[in-house]
Amino acid sequence: MKKIKAGIVGGTGYTGVELLRLLAHHPDVQLQAITSRKEAGTKVAAMFPGLRGHVDLAFTEPGVERLRGCDVVFFATPNGVAMGETRALLDAGARIVDLSADFRLQDVAEWERWYKVKHAAPDLVKQAVYGLCEVNREKIRGARLVANPGCYPSAVQLGFLPLVEAGVVDLDHLIADAKSGVSGAGRKAELQLAYAEASENFMAYNVPGHRHWPEIRQGLAQAAGREVGLVFTPHLTPMVRGIHATLYARISKETDFQALFEKRYRDEPFVDVMPAGSHPDTRSVRAANVCRLALHRPPEGAKRSDTLVVLSVIDNLMKGASGQAVQNMNLMFGLPEIAGLGQAPVVP
Amino acid sequence: MKKIKAGIVGGTGYTGVELLRLLAHHPDVQLQAITSRKEAGTKVAAMFPGLRGHVDLAFTEPGVERLRGCDVVFFATPNGVAMGETRALLDAGARIVDLSADFRLQDVAEWERWYKVKHAAPDLVKQAVYGLCEVNREKIRGARLVANPGCYPSAVQLGFLPLVEAGVVDLDHLIADAKSGVSGAGRKAELQLAYAEASENFMAYNVPGHRHWPEIRQGLAQAAGREVGLVFTPHLTPMVRGIHATLYARISKETDFQALFEKRYRDEPFVDVMPAGSHPDTRSVRAANVCRLALHRPPEGAKRSDTLVVLSVIDNLMKGASGQAVQNMNLMFGLPEIAGLGQAPVVP
Amino acid sequence: MKKIKAGIVGGTGYTGVELLRLLAHHPDVQLQAITSRKEAGTKVAAMFPGLRGHVDLAFTEPGVERLRGCDVVFFATPNGVAMGETRALLDAGARIVDLSADFRLQDVAEWERWYKVKHAAPDLVKQAVYGLCEVNREKIRGARLVANPGCYPSAVQLGFLPLVEAGVVDLDHLIADAKSGVSGAGRKAELQLAYAEASENFMAYNVPGHRHWPEIRQGLAQAAGREVGLVFTPHLTPMVRGIHATLYARISKETDFQALFEKRYRDEPFVDVMPAGSHPDTRSVRAANVCRLALHRPPEGAKRSDTLVVLSVIDNLMKGASGQAVQNMNLMFGLPEIAGLGQAPVVP
Amino acid sequence: MKKIKAGIVGGTGYTGVELLRLLAHHPDVQLQAITSRKEAGTKVAAMFPGLRGHVDLAFTEPGVERLRGCDVVFFATPNGVAMGETRALLDAGARIVDLSADFRLQDVAEWERWYKVKHAAPDLVKQAVYGLCEVNREKIRGARLVANPGCYPSAVQLGFLPLVEAGVVDLDHLIADAKSGVSGAGRKAELQLAYAEASENFMAYNVPGHRHWPEIRQGLAQAAGREVGLVFTPHLTPMVRGIHATLYARISKETDFQALFEKRYRDEPFVDVMPAGSHPDTRSVRAANVCRLALHRPPEGAKRSDTLVVLSVIDNLMKGASGQAVQNMNLMFGLPEIAGLGQAPVVP
Repeated sequence: MKKIKAGIVGGTGYTGVELLRLLAHHPDVQLQAITSRKEAGTKVAAMFPGLRGHVDLAFTEPGVERLRGCDVVFFATPNGVAMGETRALLDAGARIVDLSADFRLQDVAEWERWYKVKHAAPDLVKQAVYGLCEVNREKIRGARLVANPGCYPSAVQLGFLPLVEAGVVDLDHLIADAKSGVSGAGRKAELQLAYAEASENFMAYNVPGHRHWPEIRQGLAQAAGREVGLVFTPHLTPMVRGIHATLYARISKETDFQALFEKRYRDEPFVDVMPAGSHPDTRSVRAANVCRLALHRPPEGAKRSDTLVVLSVIDNLMKGASGQAVQNMNLMFGLPEIAGLGQAPVVP
Repeated sequence: MKKIKAGIVGGTGYTGVELLRLLAHHPDVQLQAITSRKEAGTKVAAMFPGLRGHVDLAFTEPGVERLRGCDVVFFATPNGVAMGETRALLDAGARIVDLSADFRLQDVAEWERWYKVKHAAPDLVKQAVYGLCEVNREKIRGARLVANPGCYPSAVQLGFLPLVEAGVVDLDHLIADAKSGVSGAGRKAELQLAYAEASENFMAYNVPGHRHWPEIRQGLAQAAGREVGLVFTPHLTPMVRGIHATLYARISKETDFQALFEKRYRDEPFVDVMPAGSHPDTRSVRAANVCRLALHRPPEGAKRSDTLVVLSVIDNLMKGASGQAVQNMNLMFGLPEIAGLGQAPVVP
Repeated sequence: MKKIKAGIVGGTGYTGVELLRLLAHHPDVQLQAITSRKEAGTKVAAMFPGLRGHVDLAFTEPGVERLRGCDVVFFATPNGVAMGETRALLDAGARIVDLSADFRLQDVAEWERWYKVKHAAPDLVKQAVYGLCEVNREKIRGARLVANPGCYPSAVQLGFLPLVEAGVVDLDHLIADAKSGVSGAGRKAELQLAYAEASENFMAYNVPGHRHWPEIRQGLAQAAGREVGLVFTPHLTPMVRGIHATLYARISKETDFQALFEKRYRDEPFVDVMPAGSHPDTRSVRAANVCRLALHRPPEGAKRSDTLVVLSVIDNLMKGASGQAVQNMNLMFGLPEIAGLGQAPVVP
Repeated sequence: MKKIKAGIVGGTGYTGVELLRLLAHHPDVQLQAITSRKEAGTKVAAMFPGLRGHVDLAFTEPGVERLRGCDVVFFATPNGVAMGETRALLDAGARIVDLSADFRLQDVAEWERWYKVKHAAPDLVKQAVYGLCEVNREKIRGARLVANPGCYPSAVQLGFLPLVEAGVVDLDHLIADAKSGVSGAGRKAELQLAYAEASENFMAYNVPGHRHWPEIRQGLAQAAGREVGLVFTPHLTPMVRGIHATLYARISKETDFQALFEKRYRDEPFVDVMPAGSHPDTRSVRAANVCRLALHRPPEGAKRSDTLVVLSVIDNLMKGASGQAVQNMNLMFGLPEIAGLGQAPVVP
């Protein structure tokens, strides 16, 4: 089979380099071009010595010209870039997987409130398919533009979806207490992300409002067929990779929740419902494109609680970003969904 | 003034060595004896080189004889030791601060369920005062036996107390999502606590039931004057010191919550209510006897949430253990409450 | 081609689980059996949830019977096990890659001094080939028993070899200052390896003598054709994976050292001589079977130094253990040397 | 006694905040002013919440006016600031402790080569006393301007000094292999210092030349009365605080090295010569103003080595910066040398 020619816009961040790691050995992909205005001319492997011997390309200037001929283009850029460049690439025949937030919210006005900039391509938002494969698999197969989900939204939605779809919990008061490793904030020279600031330290942040909150609510609302209420509390935890979302839902209708989850995800190659009572740890998904889930029914007062606790873990750079992006590409091009994503997690 | 003679039973764990760090420079205390069956004869500073030049004692065999003459004895032992040795020490005239869990639960039957051993001194449980100074200050002043609170219970109770005492939240569905550094598990050779297991990893544990759950419920029930419902989810986070408790309460009666907290803790030397909207981080209390609190009212659905979020941070070895133990001793002996506890946190 | 049937003795440590990660997706290998006396009957994936969906085997009792039919058996056991069980397996037709130290030292008396136990199979020591592929490739191809090198010895020998073979440095005063992540000590419940002991901490250990010292000296002496003098200082650094060896050699004969190294390793698939002046970091080899080397000629006094500094990094579990073991297996069975070892490092 | 009025220029970095931690509770000091152009007007405790309740000052604009009346001014600024502002402060009657590198090298031409800027006050360099108290105690007592040593130079010089002063090692080939926690690089938004870059990673840096190399050589040359040759290899280790220097010296004259060190530092309050064969770890000095040293004579070849290994650990922010600065201030003002520096290390 002819290999798919892939381009990456903005390959110098963590999601970019993770894409490189995956695509360099994807059996059906040929890396064609990687752009970076700042690093144009630099060998990728000079910037990321770990890729010596794996990626021979140099960064090129951005622009449609450099990406012409690509079958698929990944945007691993800061928010606000993809919305300006996607149209030309679509016109040039490429399909797009956007790892940034530009096409994630269908409500453009709400997007503009949260991202504080005018959207450059509202009409494309309508065409974009939200790339949570476990929800939109069929639409993704036919999509030309996929909005790859955010990291928190991937972990939180996969944890809540079976409950919301089945309508068995109070949809007005969902709580997602989520903890992320520092790489989730991107490859940036920011004081708050410095080692001496973030190590041996734990904190909540953006409790009054985080951009992933409307994204999660949009997904859950779609599953529920109505608005949902959600308190979302993100925390920064001193590790590089990993998200652990601890989800709380008040049960409105008793059922066999373990069976509900197992049935919902029975055929999913990248969602693992663990035995009841498990405590999934983030390293069990490190460097792998998996979401592991476990259910608990803890005591609350004198009697059994009416609160269900769902534990959901992902690697924020894999199922929360680049792994999921490759999964989306596989679907878009009719490849086996697991192509290039079969590696086992790295433990320890 | 004559110095208080202090003894420590079981000085080889993290709470023990933290007590040594504090007491070695407490202006009103003279370290008299430190016992450890296993290390008897070893110089304390040979085991903890950081204490070279600060503590000149050697560990001695345990037993009342070695501690005779002590005005105060701290138990920094595993659960189950203090209940067997306290009576003889009380009879010998010492006052006791027990950092273990032996005297924390007033309901002996419940204690035995959780700690899976018969209690050796149920009558002493009745005499014991629960040493959360911000609740029981006056009783502690007169106490001969103080049950020093657990680490999670300190952080969680201080965060919920103003709400529970004021009766402004739904007492049946409190949620405490708590994250602890690894030192909270003690100084132990356990695989789960090994560096290569706990580093770059995040996980919940004991979600079906943790021994600190009944302790927290007991304290909150006492404050409420009724039973409370609580879901308590502890997590292990890759750092040495620090607890971050994220608390969720459904508001039952609107009020000025920030003012409520500020008023409740106005005179407390070791509870810091931060400006509304703050995100306290655990390093801001590292190596210091402080609990910092912050309140949030995040969005939940289209409108303002009816869920209040309280962030509470402590150093588990200080306000969560040894610092609080010294605070209790200060109260018991009529010293200034802050004596020996004035040091600023170590940042970074 | 028929797949090679592989067995692992002692699959519960870090080198064992790393072997599982590699072999589960090796194109030419079929995992046949994994033994563990303690965990017999337990599903491998129950113990290592990261392997759910990748390894379906359960641990079995040890013993030749369970491993009969294996083409290759890996010993990922503590020292002292392989020497007792290897003969029977060889007789049963298996080839052996021993990741422990049992067959590494040709001088049995010296081995017994360092490992403090009588060697159970001195005659097999003579048959064993030391599995540093870059030195003994041809012998390994024909070997039935390979002694897989230690982690430090891999990093240190690869860094010194070109200099020693060329005879251009003072062979009496080599210095290897080596730093290892904590996984190098194995998967053990030992206090010194506990998170709260090893995190935020750096220390040298075993400076008076480490078991890898005679192993390194043996390899360098063989390359030099004479005894060598070596000071070897191991350190524990707060990370999970990675060894960084900083090597010092006094130059006895000037040459183009960069060219010397590049020529020596030109055809090596797993040794990367970086551009002169590079500073390889351990994450650039994380989870990959690579050794990266860089040369420096720092100033020493007023003029250019006569000391050469070589920086050598490996992942202790890969090129320092399980990756190298697979590389050895590939050679022994005539497979492409890189089969199953092509993955890019995991960064960040 | 009247308290010493202290000012800090540039109080927003790690050495600045560490000074605040120490001076806030120094019995003889009153914090008078803290300047920061960028943060003028901000409460110190708003920036460093750990100082809430300990420091009530706000940052002020820099300038002599704000510091007039200070008895001592600490420069905790980037290199190049102190040399421009010191003269006016001296004229205003203040004494200066400069924690930057501006006055550390007596050879101004060499300083300019390494710091790549013209020196603004070469005449003041001559007046400056190098503030390594264990060498220049008497000069410091009378000094008006003290150049506080760098972090690496403190650890390395204290480890080599007894050998160099006694003339018992080869002075042409000293090797210092030094490892530093990340806070040594300062409080900066730099990519290389980001958590996701520096965590789970170890690397050497600046091997071709580090600015502390001439500073160490200057100190050792002064002790030796001649030039010395030194290879200095700094490494970045994934922790916040701590330096571990592993020092190698070829013995030129046998002596009782342990006795030599113990005698040299017998009366030093902040240098701890540990029992022979010890392995000091960095946490044993965390947050304390101590240097711990240990000596080793490892095997090298068949017989005992002629290489001596010295292990030297400090907290880079304490004995390597702010603690030493307070020690210098104590000497300059005739206070007990240990005033305000008596706290025990924070372990774990």
